[in-house]
Amino acid sequence: MSTIVTKFGGTSLCDAAHFENVADILRLDPDRRFVVPSAPGKRFEGDEKVTDLLYACHALALEGKDFAGPLDKVGARFEEIARALGLSDRWARALSAIRERIPNERTADYAASRGEYLCGVMLSEYLGWDFLDPTEVIFFDAEGRLDSECTHTLCKVRLTKHSRAVIPGFYGAMPDGAVRTFSRGGSDITGAIVARAAGAFLYENWTDVPGFLMADPRIVDKPRLITSLTYRELRELSYMGASVLHEEAVFPVRKAGIPVNIRSTVHPDHPGTRIVPWTDEVDSTITGIAGHKGFHILTVEKAMMNAEIGFGRRVLQALEELGITFEHMPSGIDTLCVVLDERQLEGKQQALVSRIYELTEPDSVDIKTNIALIATVGRGMVGNRGTSARLFAALTKAGVNIRMIDQGSSELNIIVGVNNADFECAVRAIYAAFVE
Amino acid sequence: MSTIVTKFGGTSLCDAAHFENVADILRLDPDRRFVVPSAPGKRFEGDEKVTDLLYACHALALEGKDFAGPLDKVGARFEEIARALGLSDRWARALSAIRERIPNERTADYAASRGEYLCGVMLSEYLGWDFLDPTEVIFFDAEGRLDSECTHTLCKVRLTKHSRAVIPGFYGAMPDGAVRTFSRGGSDITGAIVARAAGAFLYENWTDVPGFLMADPRIVDKPRLITSLTYRELRELSYMGASVLHEEAVFPVRKAGIPVNIRSTVHPDHPGTRIVPWTDEVDSTITGIAGHKGFHILTVEKAMMNAEIGFGRRVLQALEELGITFEHMPSGIDTLCVVLDERQLEGKQQALVSRIYELTEPDSVDIKTNIALIATVGRGMVGNRGTSARLFAALTKAGVNIRMIDQGSSELNIIVGVNNADFECAVRAIYAAFVE
Repeated sequence: MSTIVTKFGGTSLCDAAHFENVADILRLDPDRRFVVPSAPGKRFEGDEKVTDLLYACHALALEGKDFAGPLDKVGARFEEIARALGLSDRWARALSAIRERIPNERTADYAASRGEYLCGVMLSEYLGWDFLDPTEVIFFDAEGRLDSECTHTLCKVRLTKHSRAVIPGFYGAMPDGAVRTFSRGGSDITGAIVARAAGAFLYENWTDVPGFLMADPRIVDKPRLITSLTYRELRELSYMGASVLHEEAVFPVRKAGIPVNIRSTVHPDHPGTRIVPWTDEVDSTITGIAGHKGFHILTVEKAMMNAEIGFGRRVLQALEELGITFEHMPSGIDTLCVVLDERQLEGKQQALVSRIYELTEPDSVDIKTNIALIATVGRGMVGNRGTSARLFAALTKAGVNIRMIDQGSSELNIIVGVNNADFECAVRAIYAAFVE
Repeated sequence: MSTIVTKFGGTSLCDAAHFENVADILRLDPDRRFVVPSAPGKRFEGDEKVTDLLYACHALALEGKDFAGPLDKVGARFEEIARALGLSDRWARALSAIRERIPNERTADYAASRGEYLCGVMLSEYLGWDFLDPTEVIFFDAEGRLDSECTHTLCKVRLTKHSRAVIPGFYGAMPDGAVRTFSRGGSDITGAIVARAAGAFLYENWTDVPGFLMADPRIVDKPRLITSLTYRELRELSYMGASVLHEEAVFPVRKAGIPVNIRSTVHPDHPGTRIVPWTDEVDSTITGIAGHKGFHILTVEKAMMNAEIGFGRRVLQALEELGITFEHMPSGIDTLCVVLDERQLEGKQQALVSRIYELTEPDSVDIKTNIALIATVGRGMVGNRGTSARLFAALTKAGVNIRMIDQGSSELNIIVGVNNADFECAVRAIYAAFVE
């Protein structure tokens, strides 16, 4: 039996009409056997997401305050859907139990996960499919990290017992059985875990955008859609942020070589973006451009540093002691730069500089602020000799000053550092050079 | 009293005619008060350097063998010079003492330093200047490293006692008074130390080449001479190797902001290359191109490595434990590359890969061999927007595949990794793009 695992985002399940649309999509292909729903999202600009209301309930409960306000809003959302679809009052009984339990929970995880739970309960009744609670198949370790192997083993066995099932996204269980959620957007991870455990040949991720765009549409006017990209390219484009697919959702499916298809419930006929283990199809030299502002470049200067065993290690030790992660570490002769997300450095700048002085006795330490990083990514760049020339010619023509360049041996990604003020201009110039 | 410290290389003191030439140069400018001679070098293609003969003496003595052969050759060289210049037999008495002491020395330092010593003795007699033995003013610590501050303090006081003096290059004293030499070419360092201690306004380094060339003349046909470059640019060009000026000679003069003038005794009228603390004179966008073959790129892949505190530090710890220094560390997303000199990795490759696996649990580790690094350096590149575009366009046109790019925030140097086989072609292409 071939299996497709299908995940739907919050806007695809925001009201009764969208539930019907989801059911139509599922019925269209009988291989769509397992469905992972998010919690109902915004119906219109300015609307509240169910999950946000639930976080508000927990916050009020923590302060000993009444949280009926937001919880009743949640109830109203589900009631409207149940009534329109002619469903039972199972959701209302579940909501009563939730109302009682919220004040007893120390963390927000339980409350936050109830949107997916209720949505799953309702969808399983509407479809007539089994309901499988993720606390029975998705496990976190005592530190709250996904226990991926244990999860995979148990989930795989459990799925064989269901021919069709609804598995709510976003959460699982701690070793003591308490509910634990992933970070925001974590239903994508649930879907990927289920796809791997089900041995699916495809993981469909239905959302409200047509797929991955080649560049940020707030910067580039109507950027092209990426029709296919490799897992690897997706990771290299991770500066894009997690707006389309959760960063960690790639790992379970990559392990099993399962392709991911990003589809849009707004344009269900559109093929969307396909993320594949490997492809030799190349549409254009570059696959996409990602980047954002807000980096710092820390520069350490010391004469003859490359002859000093352990110099680089000591610089990185200073970062580690302060719990700071870094993005890149380009270097010249006697100069070592560390590119850091500015949020990593907040409140730690002085301590870091002091510690580097102590550990490395440098000639100087300097921090340049307001740097933006731009990653130009593409499998078509490998072995294509003209890419860097084209990229830098475009930036020159646009008058962009290049503050840093970093290209490792993957040849899949050239990372350029520019001033924050040049960021949009640089992205547009690169896009124009390779795409238009 | 203004002071110039003048250092002469071995070919500039290879025979009596060259001694006369050196004396002419010194007399031409009365500010040339302190002179640092090397040992007599080759007089013709295939000739032996005095220092090589002295190393051979020590090696034979260590094995208990007779070393009269090479030592007599040394004697003959000095005898010829003494006779032609009408000098006393002071050199011959010194040589007898050396002959007796060589078998008692554990290290080669004493023997190796006698070429400079004898040359200095002879030059001081010829010029009628004081002789100052560097064991009285240049000090090494117990680990054999130059004790630069102690040396500076004592040398400064001592130089005030001489209006004109000859100070042999290449050696100094250990804490126990034993002779200790610098690495090959170390007379350049002696000259720089003396220049700083004498408060010289100029350090002249006379050699047999006209100065620094913009590129390796074995690769580029008749490359242009660099007329001026900053200390910083010189360091960035250090891939050039130490053929013109010893790598460490910059540090003492840089501390005091003393310019260095590389001059040629073959063309004494030519102004040579001037190395200065700072200049706003820009002749061309790039100042020089340096590079060499024989690097490896070690690539470590691990999903989400940039979110893992201490990942980079652990990779560098593996290198440190094995005593390996690295050149650069460019990175992508989930990929970290370390560029290493292949000599650093010799016999340690397996151990390094194993240790990285133990410390970082990577997805994969890979070593790419036969990589050449090319540094394109120039103060004219800072803020000059077209540089990278021009550089990469030239490489593209030449059909060179770019394996790595690294530009830190100094903006003074773009480092490119190419295949060994593309090295010469790449250097010629860059030179042609910026110079011709």
